[in-house]
Amino acid sequence: MIEQETVAILGLGLIGGSLARDLSMRGTRVLGYDRDAEQVRAAFNVRAISGVIGEDLEALRSASIVVLAVPVDVAPALLERASPFLGAAELITDVGSTKLVIGERASKLGVRDRFVGAHPMAGDSRAGFAASRPGLFTGSRVYLCPSSRSEPPAKTKALKLWHAVGADVRWTTAEEHDGEVAFTSHLPHLLSAALARTIATAGHDVAALGTGGRVMTRLAGSSPAMWQAIVSTNHAAIVRALAACASQLDQVRELVARKDHTSVARLFEESGEWLRAAPADAAPENKAPRKKARGASGITG
Amino acid sequence: MIEQETVAILGLGLIGGSLARDLSMRGTRVLGYDRDAEQVRAAFNVRAISGVIGEDLEALRSASIVVLAVPVDVAPALLERASPFLGAAELITDVGSTKLVIGERASKLGVRDRFVGAHPMAGDSRAGFAASRPGLFTGSRVYLCPSSRSEPPAKTKALKLWHAVGADVRWTTAEEHDGEVAFTSHLPHLLSAALARTIATAGHDVAALGTGGRVMTRLAGSSPAMWQAIVSTNHAAIVRALAACASQLDQVRELVARKDHTSVARLFEESGEWLRAAPADAAPENKAPRKKARGASGITG
Repeated sequence: MIEQETVAILGLGLIGGSLARDLSMRGTRVLGYDRDAEQVRAAFNVRAISGVIGEDLEALRSASIVVLAVPVDVAPALLERASPFLGAAELITDVGSTKLVIGERASKLGVRDRFVGAHPMAGDSRAGFAASRPGLFTGSRVYLCPSSRSEPPAKTKALKLWHAVGADVRWTTAEEHDGEVAFTSHLPHLLSAALARTIATAGHDVAALGTGGRVMTRLAGSSPAMWQAIVSTNHAAIVRALAACASQLDQVRELVARKDHTSVARLFEESGEWLRAAPADAAPENKAPRKKARGASGITG
Repeated sequence: MIEQETVAILGLGLIGGSLARDLSMRGTRVLGYDRDAEQVRAAFNVRAISGVIGEDLEALRSASIVVLAVPVDVAPALLERASPFLGAAELITDVGSTKLVIGERASKLGVRDRFVGAHPMAGDSRAGFAASRPGLFTGSRVYLCPSSRSEPPAKTKALKLWHAVGADVRWTTAEEHDGEVAFTSHLPHLLSAALARTIATAGHDVAALGTGGRVMTRLAGSSPAMWQAIVSTNHAAIVRALAACASQLDQVRELVARKDHTSVARLFEESGEWLRAAPADAAPENKAPRKKARGASGITG
């Protein structure tokens, strides 16, 4: 029962704030920390948190679940600051969009057995507690990334936490997760920025964009700080994804250059089919989403 | 006065059908042709057209304005079929998203002096007369591409035609137009398809896409036939745009590979600034939109 836990949420932005709201509404005791006192006040005022964790983080001592909900490049240092006070914590988790770097820090700090990384796919372009809302995670996919050293109680608590807020939980590993999001999220954002720079460099302004051009450059307006942070924690996989995309782009250029019109049509046919295909695994939760997924055994049965 | 013209519209799909609706509503006599009799019936039933042009195209003889509103790879042959009956036409135009190929055919057929190509930026993913609607062009940008040989009366009528339906007219040349849309429209569509293929080839299904991945692959589901046609009429410019984008992508990959996080942030900062920038030329019509634009002299004063 999630109501029996004391959950400490470090970072009360869109994700941390929304999680605090839902857990508090369920009757769970939620303690909140944010380096910005304004966010803490806002969360306390709407009863998203019932207690405040100060800058010394000592109040973490009473938490059975600790959630890092800060940018991915800040989370490792915050985990280090928190580590002296994690004696009562049975689950230490995070919500960042990359999972290897934070997992490695957990290992280094000796808390890997209680650490299970999480990545809720519920981000949007807004930020701060003002953007948080009840029900943000209902039906959202949440990847959980235990390591081989994660203990069953930590995994059970991670599942309980995200089930309590209605998430569609998928088990995977940090390696596989980071490799996948490099393709499904990081590459698309970088591509949008590269496209915007390409069009701008060619001397065309944004008013010249057709509908397609507008759609494809929209993500280029994403937060520079957030993308700097994400890229800095997932280099190798992103480089692989960029190389794979560059190779596909070269192939498209060759098709066009040699006037192979049929293959251009086939590119759109195949891409359209892929877009419309139902996922092979439609089970809502507790299943490894892909053949290669590891880390699922022992969790669901 | 557009009401004094007889406008023949060849192709009663989204663009041709919408143009027919608006002109008929203004009291203009509109004759319609479509190889699909069902589209003709639908247009006639809602009084978008008041007369029907048969397969022999002979009824074109009475038209003072002839508009080709068929796919770009079909338009040249249709213009050739129509050419024996264009004696009364003072303006021959089209609505395709590439302008060089159709302009060359007009030259070859000896009607270049009366031909002014048009490209209304009003397409969407739907097609056919059923998708047409009144007011589609209100405020939409329409590029007009006369050649050095286009006569003033043809240019005047082209301006009158698109002003009558509320368009934001911009004068340019076919060369410049095709070069620009290669970057602002064709490249984004091909990039979306290349991205979809990249993600699919890496073994990830569409359910794994985050918000960003979904946005960036949406255009990959565009009509294969339409994109085959567009690409087939704008090879050289598209190859240049793909090469420019590949080069930007390589630069991004280098930044990430050498862990130059600051430059990744700067990429998003600059792209965001470009996205938010107001266009240098905010005048609504009759002006050359960019410094390099030609063909504007003698049109507006």
